[in-house]
Amino acid sequence: MTGTGNSNLTRDAFLGGRLHLWQPREGYRAGVDAVLLAASVGATTGQRVLELGCGVGTAILCLNSRVPGLRLAAVEVQPTMADLARRNGGDALEVFTADVAELPADLRQRQFDHVLANPPYYDRAASVRSGDPAREAAHGETTPLATWVRVAAKRLAPRGQAHFIHRAERLPDLIRALPDDLGSVEVLPLAAREGRAPDRVILRARKNGRGAFRLHPALALHVGAHHSDANKDYAPVVDAALREGAALRF
Amino acid sequence: MTGTGNSNLTRDAFLGGRLHLWQPREGYRAGVDAVLLAASVGATTGQRVLELGCGVGTAILCLNSRVPGLRLAAVEVQPTMADLARRNGGDALEVFTADVAELPADLRQRQFDHVLANPPYYDRAASVRSGDPAREAAHGETTPLATWVRVAAKRLAPRGQAHFIHRAERLPDLIRALPDDLGSVEVLPLAAREGRAPDRVILRARKNGRGAFRLHPALALHVGAHHSDANKDYAPVVDAALREGAALRF
Repeated sequence: MTGTGNSNLTRDAFLGGRLHLWQPREGYRAGVDAVLLAASVGATTGQRVLELGCGVGTAILCLNSRVPGLRLAAVEVQPTMADLARRNGGDALEVFTADVAELPADLRQRQFDHVLANPPYYDRAASVRSGDPAREAAHGETTPLATWVRVAAKRLAPRGQAHFIHRAERLPDLIRALPDDLGSVEVLPLAAREGRAPDRVILRARKNGRGAFRLHPALALHVGAHHSDANKDYAPVVDAALREGAALRF
Repeated sequence: MTGTGNSNLTRDAFLGGRLHLWQPREGYRAGVDAVLLAASVGATTGQRVLELGCGVGTAILCLNSRVPGLRLAAVEVQPTMADLARRNGGDALEVFTADVAELPADLRQRQFDHVLANPPYYDRAASVRSGDPAREAAHGETTPLATWVRVAAKRLAPRGQAHFIHRAERLPDLIRALPDDLGSVEVLPLAAREGRAPDRVILRARKNGRGAFRLHPALALHVGAHHSDANKDYAPVVDAALREGAALRF
């Protein structure tokens, strides 16, 4: 993800250059989590996909890069970020400037085969405000996590899947927020390295799914016991997802 | 765990011979899970400990073997198993023959520093009945899992800890059953081997705990990639817990 200058924006390469995204030079910037979330979504050509809280569109546009012929919609509450998502997605991505808790009527009448979200990670009440409104809105939890889950579930077509990435410590909150009609829940813990406590989880669930809960083996993002150069020691499947746009299957 | 004959009972060695337990020759027999649950309980001398659904007393008597001077009580609904728990525990263990869902008044007036349980693993409604009433009662889920969690929470003293071992696929049910006054939840997934999906979880939670949820790295019970001799390839910390009565810290 190297940037080229343009006033307050940078244009950064993702997926080994398969995708370029404009994003703010300062404040919240897309990272590994959005890319891995996209890599974990098993969408197929022709399916309808919605991202909640898309930022500049990183996750859903990574997915678009891997799977051709998707019908993509996204919601972003911050107008400047929504505009960047429009600029990044072009004709491929329909962007609604809206609060996840108050989707526009058009969206509320539609169903999707996949809904994905990388909700804000920090509880506003428990964290110091960052002073940067965009960073605050992206990282601060203005809309409760349970609302994200509920809204995602409501927008799913029968047998559709919801996909979330969040901090591992919020796993109980994700699980408690799942409505009764979401089942076949699977969790992939993500750890920095083998033997470390997972600090992220990807959770997916299926509308009307009846399968038992599955806790997958943790995926270690980096190989080796110590941090050497975070850009160079990714585990092979992670490297393939980040730099070659490969799927992350579990 | 080698047995010596005695009509319908065997007397089996646990913790490398530090503990011997009478149990039925046929039907449900204590296993690794109860021993590991006991090993994970960080009790200290003088504390009050309650086991729900103790069977012949395996978990709580393993704990008694490791930590001296505990005050131990246990509940078991099956009279024959409760009698064996009394025989196994002697003066060290107070056993109540009662349903977890209907604790005797004496117990309902008491509080404990630790409550542990290895609830039945198989949902009666979803599984074929075994034909063995004792096995059925131990393995079949007559009392809902949520009741076990609720009853455990109610019997905890302030800052006391609840400890459960269960199938990994029931983790969401355990989490959803936790009352609001249990916090500082920690989960240790147990996998047969490195890289396998965990099939058990140990969950502990603290009354009035306010710590964030922690998902620990999975513990692989066996070393090596393939099954050779399950009695001989335990990982060192597991072997120490099973054969030397060591604590299993997380």
